[in-house]
Amino acid sequence: MPETALRLTNCRAATLPAGGGYGLVERAALVLRDGRIDWVGPEAEMPADAAHLPARDLGGRLVTPAPIDCHTHAVHGGERAGEFEMRLEGASYEEVARAGGGILSTVRATRAAGEEALVEGGLRFVDALIAEGVATVEIKSGYGLDRETELRMLRAAREIGRRRDVAVRTSFLGAHAVPPEYKGRGGAYLDEVCIPALRAAHAEGLVDAVDGFCEGIAFSPPEIDRLFAVAAELGLPVKLHAEQLSNLGGAALAARHGALSADHLEHLDEAGVMAMAGAGTVAVLLPGAFYTLRETMVPPVELLRRHGVPMAVATDMNPGSSPMASIILAMNMACTLFRLTPAEALAGVTRHAARALGLSDRGSLAPGLRADLAVWDCEGPAELAYRIGFNPLHARIIGGAA
Amino acid sequence: MPETALRLTNCRAATLPAGGGYGLVERAALVLRDGRIDWVGPEAEMPADAAHLPARDLGGRLVTPAPIDCHTHAVHGGERAGEFEMRLEGASYEEVARAGGGILSTVRATRAAGEEALVEGGLRFVDALIAEGVATVEIKSGYGLDRETELRMLRAAREIGRRRDVAVRTSFLGAHAVPPEYKGRGGAYLDEVCIPALRAAHAEGLVDAVDGFCEGIAFSPPEIDRLFAVAAELGLPVKLHAEQLSNLGGAALAARHGALSADHLEHLDEAGVMAMAGAGTVAVLLPGAFYTLRETMVPPVELLRRHGVPMAVATDMNPGSSPMASIILAMNMACTLFRLTPAEALAGVTRHAARALGLSDRGSLAPGLRADLAVWDCEGPAELAYRIGFNPLHARIIGGAA
Ligand SMILES: [Zn+2]
Ligand SMILES: [Zn+2]
Repeated sequence: MPETALRLTNCRAATLPAGGGYGLVERAALVLRDGRIDWVGPEAEMPADAAHLPARDLGGRLVTPAPIDCHTHAVHGGERAGEFEMRLEGASYEEVARAGGGILSTVRATRAAGEEALVEGGLRFVDALIAEGVATVEIKSGYGLDRETELRMLRAAREIGRRRDVAVRTSFLGAHAVPPEYKGRGGAYLDEVCIPALRAAHAEGLVDAVDGFCEGIAFSPPEIDRLFAVAAELGLPVKLHAEQLSNLGGAALAARHGALSADHLEHLDEAGVMAMAGAGTVAVLLPGAFYTLRETMVPPVELLRRHGVPMAVATDMNPGSSPMASIILAMNMACTLFRLTPAEALAGVTRHAARALGLSDRGSLAPGLRADLAVWDCEGPAELAYRIGFNPLHARIIGGAA
Repeated sequence: MPETALRLTNCRAATLPAGGGYGLVERAALVLRDGRIDWVGPEAEMPADAAHLPARDLGGRLVTPAPIDCHTHAVHGGERAGEFEMRLEGASYEEVARAGGGILSTVRATRAAGEEALVEGGLRFVDALIAEGVATVEIKSGYGLDRETELRMLRAAREIGRRRDVAVRTSFLGAHAVPPEYKGRGGAYLDEVCIPALRAAHAEGLVDAVDGFCEGIAFSPPEIDRLFAVAAELGLPVKLHAEQLSNLGGAALAARHGALSADHLEHLDEAGVMAMAGAGTVAVLLPGAFYTLRETMVPPVELLRRHGVPMAVATDMNPGSSPMASIILAMNMACTLFRLTPAEALAGVTRHAARALGLSDRGSLAPGLRADLAVWDCEGPAELAYRIGFNPLHARIIGGAA
């Protein structure tokens, strides 16, 4: 049973304050009450009324907000190792497609999978994230591309949140690709399948946000506009895969709709950055996809900094362009490949990741926020992003319970 | 207690045969006796005299030789997260050096560390490798650069092998860098410190191979030549960090000495490749360092293939240029960054990694070899290299014992 109130003592706390940086408190303590952070600060200044609470000595370890993975496609059928192998053996994209590869192979496998198979498949990756301390994970639909499968993916995502001590936030991504049966008729797919599926999923309480893929190979800005108008009508926040492979002005479009986030952004220009800054839209950087696709164009990190756009970092866990299930590795890649600082990378998987999901009750260490904490065997917070393929998690404390 | 004899049934076995490829046996079984593989093949053809042995049903999972990490600097003092952070905050190399960064900061921390601290530090990373099924790990000295600390590092490496069920192979790397007290006098360091330390370490049974760093910033080919002559006199095999940052002909030099391996090799030319092919020297590829240093020159994989040079893959686990403790991630990076096929990457961490350490008793699945196996929750062997930051290990079987 979780303690209803608890002191954590003898730690270093990276609080991730609004002003930026780690907000590191040395010789820190925290008081947790009823699943919330009641107090955090130097142990010597701990309120007297907390002195009687049961204490857990953290042995000088580092405490951070529990990581949040704010962009995943963790629920899907099948895997694409065969396609990865074909490409490395020299097959062209055309040959891979002819052999049944690409996103449509995942659509086929996802349509063929029952809800339980989707839950179990998703749990493999969510469990890997939980082993790194993750407390909140976003999961998208988007490999069904028909009403029934889109809803089944979202039900599977919700079920994952019930089976594990992790908060799942769902995004409806019916506008991820045009299914084969609507080839060349993306607009018709949107009106006849995607938007009705969104309404049905919303009616069932399955949707926390509406997402889309704005790209030449997916949906045009006017189509995304149409989708987002429906989201607004339903009272749902929006986010968008934008400017990944080209610049269609998706980020500015998302900003016009007050989007929580625009994601990928390798080809984002300054106008898009300024639009995002004006709307408070978070930039979600996905270095795993950049790495896997061997892209050379990096997101405009310096422009995002200059205009004060918060940068989140996520795994983009998906079977094609980012089969990555490590939020700590995403931090390292954000630094090594995109030149974020370790402090920006840590804010990217905590404070700004929460904001990218519209959550104001987590992502930093402050009174009133959820007591979702990660305790690390680290000398200092920069070590989290510095190491590669190494998990220094000591303990995960969710809602105040280890 | 380990069973002295055991059947493993209901698996897929990637045997990693001499001819290349996975050597995949479907519906396979293995018979293990006295820590060795006694038989491997299709379950239907299992020898009748094995039928009475205790059986372990592997549930259709994939079995491979246990991975071997054939190039690590896992034993060292300190970490360099602060330096990683300084660089990302815009500091120049000069500023980092002035702040005490670079390899010499690790030398200072290693000299200051007692043997127990070195063992415990090394165990952090070796335990991470063991969690991925690794059964054999190479550990180098080279951060002492004085007699006492070089020997202490090697003793710590041997101790790690005693504390865990993992085979440790040591490499004496006194010729890693010129210590500050010999600045500008690398030759004198070699004669006065490095070679005497090698003789002392060998006399204590601490050295399995002799390694060096042949580079403008480290030791010249004639200096390495001199070191390798002593290795020959002591009957020790050699290996060499070569052609990482420039082409000094280090690989050909290593080949002339019949080296087990030449490692890094980004700047290797065809003459070097041919010399390695002639000598049977393994090419050890270290994509973690390539990634961290953001190199653009990749090793000449196509030339290595054409001339039949076996390619191994390792983590290069070290606190500066490759703070990576995942052999599975090294496989993925070898594919994504160097364009190895998944089958080459798997051979690189099994069959060819064994050869890079001069070990002929492990690295594939064949009668008479050590029963060091990894059992994976994978559909097929390509999945190991395909995923990023995900560990699908189901079980590790060492010497026939789980
Ligand atoms: Zn995505
Ligand atoms: Zn090395």
